[in-house]
Amino acid sequence: MHLKPILFDFFYGQDTLFSELLNSGQFEKGETDIRRFPDGESYVRVLSQCKQRKVIILANLHHPDDKFLPLLFLFQALRDQDVKHITLISPYLPYMRQDKRFHDGECVTSAQFASLLSPAIDKIITIDPHLHRYSSLSEIYSVDNLVLKADNTIAEWIKQNIKKPLIIGPDSESEQWAAATAEFIDCPYLVLSKERLGDREVKISTPHAGDLTDHTPVLVDDIISTGRTMIETAKVLNAEGFRPPVCIGVHAVFSERDYNALRNSAVDRIITCNTIPHHSNGIDIAKLLLREAITN
Amino acid sequence: MHLKPILFDFFYGQDTLFSELLNSGQFEKGETDIRRFPDGESYVRVLSQCKQRKVIILANLHHPDDKFLPLLFLFQALRDQDVKHITLISPYLPYMRQDKRFHDGECVTSAQFASLLSPAIDKIITIDPHLHRYSSLSEIYSVDNLVLKADNTIAEWIKQNIKKPLIIGPDSESEQWAAATAEFIDCPYLVLSKERLGDREVKISTPHAGDLTDHTPVLVDDIISTGRTMIETAKVLNAEGFRPPVCIGVHAVFSERDYNALRNSAVDRIITCNTIPHHSNGIDIAKLLLREAITN
Repeated sequence: MHLKPILFDFFYGQDTLFSELLNSGQFEKGETDIRRFPDGESYVRVLSQCKQRKVIILANLHHPDDKFLPLLFLFQALRDQDVKHITLISPYLPYMRQDKRFHDGECVTSAQFASLLSPAIDKIITIDPHLHRYSSLSEIYSVDNLVLKADNTIAEWIKQNIKKPLIIGPDSESEQWAAATAEFIDCPYLVLSKERLGDREVKISTPHAGDLTDHTPVLVDDIISTGRTMIETAKVLNAEGFRPPVCIGVHAVFSERDYNALRNSAVDRIITCNTIPHHSNGIDIAKLLLREAITN
Repeated sequence: MHLKPILFDFFYGQDTLFSELLNSGQFEKGETDIRRFPDGESYVRVLSQCKQRKVIILANLHHPDDKFLPLLFLFQALRDQDVKHITLISPYLPYMRQDKRFHDGECVTSAQFASLLSPAIDKIITIDPHLHRYSSLSEIYSVDNLVLKADNTIAEWIKQNIKKPLIIGPDSESEQWAAATAEFIDCPYLVLSKERLGDREVKISTPHAGDLTDHTPVLVDDIISTGRTMIETAKVLNAEGFRPPVCIGVHAVFSERDYNALRNSAVDRIITCNTIPHHSNGIDIAKLLLREAITN
């Protein structure tokens, strides 16, 4: 008999990506008892029988620090049950931003986090990790890894939900992505040019924007954290006669304060993928995970 | 030239045990920049030059979960600087209470925490760890370790501060400790007998208490967490005609709520050692550390 993998929820909770994956019928639901004692220590118990089973942990690792020990405890509790294979799905992968030693004495936390996590699991799956100086996750993760891209899921959402979209590439580096997305949707695109005016000021210009002001500009980024770039871009677009842009982020990393600052700026809507549970979630990555990650 | 060890503060802060150790003049002060970004990730930088130096980290690991990753990052940043030797002083050692698998599927967090911490350091020093089922720290810590006992420091404090003390041993297991402490102080002691009346009720009696009611009862425990045992003992003593007891704990693990509940019960004072910074701290372990741990 072929048994389904057991899917565990780690800090997603009800009515999130976890419920959606479970509703696909492809998994058995894993049960745990994870809680914190009054002294701040974690208690971790796996209630499901997992001996020689394949297990998948869907983990929300945004704000990772206080989740890290219970996550390692969960892996250990599973190993103690002699599981066959542990896959960690962390749709948002934290600690990818410190990817070099910018100053003497700094810990390169991306590499260190990867080296702490890798030995505990058999495979990691994530979506659009922030690969800036690293060319692939394998540079720092010594474990089997699968990196998925949300670009087609986002393009499909734009196609279905935005009338007359205009894809905005925020800088020249984004030209290839903007062109591909626009082609997929069959809509125009515009690449802004960033010019650094000293340390803090950035001038963004919109070349040849002439006859596109009847379109809805759409800004896309992998992470929305402070939202400042989007706010600045929206101002520039506004000055050029465009309507308020729709802002799309893969990962809703922003604090509530930064989210509200962005909402109160000259933007239309803020939509994120449900990689991190947040009330801006509007683009569902469940199908992407089910198709690309879990059936393989 | 013999250089002093470099002493780093990890979550103690000003006017605590850290300042006291530093004021001994035996150390060079280590400087770090440790903070948390708005997305909850930690930034860790060692500002001091530590190449081929011996370093000591005095760490407050009470409420350990959100401190664990930055602590490992600090060790790594020190290793990256090619330090000679890392000693971790964790006066209160967390995760000692889950020392067996009480139910199927539980993670034995004491062993797992020890196995995560051990490879990162060269030595660990702690005070009165909660050794219940383990006979020594070496059963779970694979690194050089030194365990100190606060008993003489506490006895000395009682001698100096309590008039006519009466040492209370809460149960028959504590007889040896109570007798030794009383001998050190040159005062009487009393061992209570606990009788289990079913699952939840415990009867405590005070044999031969007759002529000691003019003394001040002193209760001592390694950890005060809920404080319930002390509250119950104080009630029994009160019923027997004793004055409110002085309650002494090595480690101030209690929450503010439990601390206040204990304060509002029939006790005189609550005094703890400064292993965990807390406003109940009154017994200083700096000398113990300097004498036993750091000069060795």
